[in-house]
Amino acid sequence: MHIGMVGAGRMGSGLARRLVRAGHTCTVYDPNPAAVATLTADGIPAAGSLPELVAALPKPCAVWIMVPADLTGTVVDDLTPLLTAGDVVIDGGNSFYRDAVTRSHALSERGIHYLDVGTSGGTSGLDRGFCLMIGGPTEPVERLDPIFRALAPGIDAAPRTPGRDGAPGPAEHGYLHCGPAGAGHFAKMIHNGIEYGQMAALAEGMSILRAAGIGTTPTNPDQPAPTEAAHYTYDFDVPAILELWRRGSVVTSWLLDLTATAVHTDPDLTEFSGHVPDSGEGRWTARAAIDLAVPAPVLTTALYSRFASRDGAAYANKSLSAMRKAFGGHTEPVKTMT
Amino acid sequence: MHIGMVGAGRMGSGLARRLVRAGHTCTVYDPNPAAVATLTADGIPAAGSLPELVAALPKPCAVWIMVPADLTGTVVDDLTPLLTAGDVVIDGGNSFYRDAVTRSHALSERGIHYLDVGTSGGTSGLDRGFCLMIGGPTEPVERLDPIFRALAPGIDAAPRTPGRDGAPGPAEHGYLHCGPAGAGHFAKMIHNGIEYGQMAALAEGMSILRAAGIGTTPTNPDQPAPTEAAHYTYDFDVPAILELWRRGSVVTSWLLDLTATAVHTDPDLTEFSGHVPDSGEGRWTARAAIDLAVPAPVLTTALYSRFASRDGAAYANKSLSAMRKAFGGHTEPVKTMT
Amino acid sequence: MHIGMVGAGRMGSGLARRLVRAGHTCTVYDPNPAAVATLTADGIPAAGSLPELVAALPKPCAVWIMVPADLTGTVVDDLTPLLTAGDVVIDGGNSFYRDAVTRSHALSERGIHYLDVGTSGGTSGLDRGFCLMIGGPTEPVERLDPIFRALAPGIDAAPRTPGRDGAPGPAEHGYLHCGPAGAGHFAKMIHNGIEYGQMAALAEGMSILRAAGIGTTPTNPDQPAPTEAAHYTYDFDVPAILELWRRGSVVTSWLLDLTATAVHTDPDLTEFSGHVPDSGEGRWTARAAIDLAVPAPVLTTALYSRFASRDGAAYANKSLSAMRKAFGGHTEPVKTMT
Amino acid sequence: MHIGMVGAGRMGSGLARRLVRAGHTCTVYDPNPAAVATLTADGIPAAGSLPELVAALPKPCAVWIMVPADLTGTVVDDLTPLLTAGDVVIDGGNSFYRDAVTRSHALSERGIHYLDVGTSGGTSGLDRGFCLMIGGPTEPVERLDPIFRALAPGIDAAPRTPGRDGAPGPAEHGYLHCGPAGAGHFAKMIHNGIEYGQMAALAEGMSILRAAGIGTTPTNPDQPAPTEAAHYTYDFDVPAILELWRRGSVVTSWLLDLTATAVHTDPDLTEFSGHVPDSGEGRWTARAAIDLAVPAPVLTTALYSRFASRDGAAYANKSLSAMRKAFGGHTEPVKTMT
Repeated sequence: MHIGMVGAGRMGSGLARRLVRAGHTCTVYDPNPAAVATLTADGIPAAGSLPELVAALPKPCAVWIMVPADLTGTVVDDLTPLLTAGDVVIDGGNSFYRDAVTRSHALSERGIHYLDVGTSGGTSGLDRGFCLMIGGPTEPVERLDPIFRALAPGIDAAPRTPGRDGAPGPAEHGYLHCGPAGAGHFAKMIHNGIEYGQMAALAEGMSILRAAGIGTTPTNPDQPAPTEAAHYTYDFDVPAILELWRRGSVVTSWLLDLTATAVHTDPDLTEFSGHVPDSGEGRWTARAAIDLAVPAPVLTTALYSRFASRDGAAYANKSLSAMRKAFGGHTEPVKTMT
Repeated sequence: MHIGMVGAGRMGSGLARRLVRAGHTCTVYDPNPAAVATLTADGIPAAGSLPELVAALPKPCAVWIMVPADLTGTVVDDLTPLLTAGDVVIDGGNSFYRDAVTRSHALSERGIHYLDVGTSGGTSGLDRGFCLMIGGPTEPVERLDPIFRALAPGIDAAPRTPGRDGAPGPAEHGYLHCGPAGAGHFAKMIHNGIEYGQMAALAEGMSILRAAGIGTTPTNPDQPAPTEAAHYTYDFDVPAILELWRRGSVVTSWLLDLTATAVHTDPDLTEFSGHVPDSGEGRWTARAAIDLAVPAPVLTTALYSRFASRDGAAYANKSLSAMRKAFGGHTEPVKTMT
Repeated sequence: MHIGMVGAGRMGSGLARRLVRAGHTCTVYDPNPAAVATLTADGIPAAGSLPELVAALPKPCAVWIMVPADLTGTVVDDLTPLLTAGDVVIDGGNSFYRDAVTRSHALSERGIHYLDVGTSGGTSGLDRGFCLMIGGPTEPVERLDPIFRALAPGIDAAPRTPGRDGAPGPAEHGYLHCGPAGAGHFAKMIHNGIEYGQMAALAEGMSILRAAGIGTTPTNPDQPAPTEAAHYTYDFDVPAILELWRRGSVVTSWLLDLTATAVHTDPDLTEFSGHVPDSGEGRWTARAAIDLAVPAPVLTTALYSRFASRDGAAYANKSLSAMRKAFGGHTEPVKTMT
Repeated sequence: MHIGMVGAGRMGSGLARRLVRAGHTCTVYDPNPAAVATLTADGIPAAGSLPELVAALPKPCAVWIMVPADLTGTVVDDLTPLLTAGDVVIDGGNSFYRDAVTRSHALSERGIHYLDVGTSGGTSGLDRGFCLMIGGPTEPVERLDPIFRALAPGIDAAPRTPGRDGAPGPAEHGYLHCGPAGAGHFAKMIHNGIEYGQMAALAEGMSILRAAGIGTTPTNPDQPAPTEAAHYTYDFDVPAILELWRRGSVVTSWLLDLTATAVHTDPDLTEFSGHVPDSGEGRWTARAAIDLAVPAPVLTTALYSRFASRDGAAYANKSLSAMRKAFGGHTEPVKTMT
């Protein structure tokens, strides 16, 4: 098949290349010439504008938008007048699922299909395949099945789940029509929420391991109990332990693989300030949990830890210090732990 | 009565002065001459050493230790040889309750009584009275009842609880024999654990109020959703709102009173770095919850927020950044929120 | 002054009575005759319908709506056609602050003022006074100052904050114009968020105290470590300890007073199932924290604990059991702790 | 080599069989004849008592203890008199690392080596290999290298970490000498702490997905906001989505694989009550975080969720209900969500 791709950043270019590898054609458009240049150098065609992009595609056409979530609305607005009934817009970014519903309804009035396709895999997706969570009406999802199948990792990417027999369905290939409009981004939102929790679980464990030798520096002011200090005299090789866990442990995971690589190169993680950004999915996951009265303390706490890493708790912390001074006369020592 | 006081810091001097106000006699000892001088200037007698202190007291004597928790053991060790059967040692500091049990058992072999007396009230205790949580054997607790009663706030410190009729017991005066050895410090531990939670609840709420105008600075990079920004354009007067809540609201509390005073003077809390220390009680409360399989997520989270305020999460945060780079190619922007 | 009150439930009737006590006139309307009857029996006038209510009031009139949040919109819709320019609608319920903004804008087009007045105090407000957080335009707020002042507790309800000199402002009386439309409900939302955290802090501490004797029942399957069990042999009198903390401790608070009363009567709290409802404010507070990138782990965790108390975690918990069986062959013992 | 195995449960028998498959000899002992019978039926020799077991082994001998953590101490006590200098005791269970240190010191006085070997892999370890975290002195660790290597998964169990060149060390085979006495169990403790967090992250996400259709049952009393309900009308196929995520997503992990299998068979997880047990490691991880002043909110919250699943929060919840009644007159509705 031949589709269009708006956005030639890390994700968009990976999608385009993987489609081409599978024998499809993909024309790309990106306002940034540098982003496009690396693709055209490899023979992937580019359009100079959205109208050119649409003009280059067979009808009914399909255009995959892979841009930052806050730009998606503008691209959809610019793209819509260029399309006609039967065309398909695919939002592959991390949009809020409710925005997808709104856009889907708006476009359906013109006969244009809107698919929200949560796309996981990151920069490894080109080789590893992309996990696709698809929301929207059935007809265009079925029409684009070859595209989704080409992008997905395929059934060989993991051992088959015991009990799943017979011809494998799309889920076993790594893509799934999850439901009507918004269902794809909803599933991706939850996926990322879980990701936040898994990341925090690993990071917390790593930081305890790393601190486990604190007892050998008995002047550390964070040690109120000398009797406890004697139990923390280990000098763990964190990179080696992460490597160890990659085989046979219960916590084996792709995140562990990636983290083991990162700390092998830089055990002290000196290149990072530790001010951790968050994108919308973690926030929306927490909001969904709240709306649904389903407790999500782990996922939400992981989100809040990111806020705190960016000094979001600064005023709250100063308030605590003020209270301590007020009731106990405690003055605040200078920061001691690094 | 006439008792001894070891430690003339903020708490010890407050206890001594309140005893004297009530007509008791209190001889103090503190290795720091400056601490003692302010008391002797007001006519409160001081001893130059522990032996002098014990010698100055009527037998059987009672010595109240009011020193930092990590020094209590040494003081007890130094004091014990000076005492004889029937004497009473009172640990008024924030010791771990298990240490109190150990010390109690050790001293009881010599006929010496050990009372663990959790002492709340801070620097306001001199005027407001001290809330005393007492653990240990019954006889010395009863013997020292006049001391405890003099230190406690007294029944007039709060309206009587509906349903409590007849002669008020000690709890209604602000002191209570909570149980055998360790029970006093255990109760104080839980008290402080609750305190951590209450403090964090208020501090979090304050920080949301303070951030509620973020929508008026639309370039703030922590705002992923422009549609949300329009809902956060309030410029709240945090000191006025805390003052407001002091009367008639559900959150009226002494901590609120103190905090309202602190922010009235310094709304931006500029004198504080926000690196919030913790003493042992918050940690021990969490440990008790864990041992007892009783969930204490609020109390423990409050404790962890303090750790994070002191950069305890630095390595975990860097780990998160490393993971984000590894799977998504995300580089970390410089810190933007202040 | 003479105002109207829609809603004669616990809160509405308390407001009406307190206004009357202060010399104001309040005509009430409630579709439930029984609710109205108790007021009319005491000489408080009632209207038989919204039109009758409005007709009974001097112009420009003021109508205070005190109904459950999900009914407020309907009442406003029914009331609006009856009003004219200069009239004031007061929403005293726990509405979402964004709804107040929307309603305020809608009514302002007709010259009708809309005030969102967060009202704290509960069933005790009649005698204790109500804490009022007011949002909306200045003119009607000033016009209704006598009403707000009559409802508020007054400056004598708490000792004056040190440093606040001169003529006390409204905040010191217990009411405050917090800002434009929505500001009152926003402040009330945060107030309730803090309330959730304070409640949870106290409840967690109480439950640890209550469990502190678990070591005396060594067959309890929740005790993995026999060595730990020896440290938990206390039989605390929880009602007495709460009573104790009411005087002189750091955790003194109105919630503590109320809880001390509740457990004095019923230490085992046998009348409660412990399936704790939540209203919207706790949820909205968490959402605000998320939108603002301000960590609120304590407030949100308190909210999630309520969800869990209502079995909101049932599927998550079963999922954990399924995982444990899958990797460890663990079968799930029957529930043992009660 | 030829070693002894005490404990023929799920883990012990898996270890024994994997050793035999690799060409080693393993004599087992278990007081439960049924457990032993399945091994002897396959030609694995068994001893009738601990003395018989030791007598059957070549000297210096090595005995691997694989029993529940609370029985380990007794087995060590019984085993010690049977051993002589140079022998090795291996504790493969989930003992507290401090106990390993104590036991190591005690045995070292007799020249007996004690190794604490955190053993991960569960019932899948026989085929997948066991991940071994080893603590203790170097000489016996090196002596038993063939045993550890045979039990470990081997380097082919995972793709090699980029940047790791040359001859692979033990960590890349799935076993590692982590440090002196206690280091193995410490690393295992942290491993399990991370496992708790990962499990909870996945479980929370699953439960949000499952509840995402709540909006179609508008009478659900847990829905305060009808406007929100319209956004939750999805009927997700949770097993299909878990299967989907197994390929190409960021959350791919062994736990996901296992959970996908479990829900494929039983989407409603009807066989589980959801009263989730915990073993010691999760508790000890939290305690280590507290001792080290390193925040671990995700790991600890995951632990507390398990406590709550077993009704550990019952009294706290009732306390909240009592407070709500006290200040608001709220009575508690019957439980509505299931």
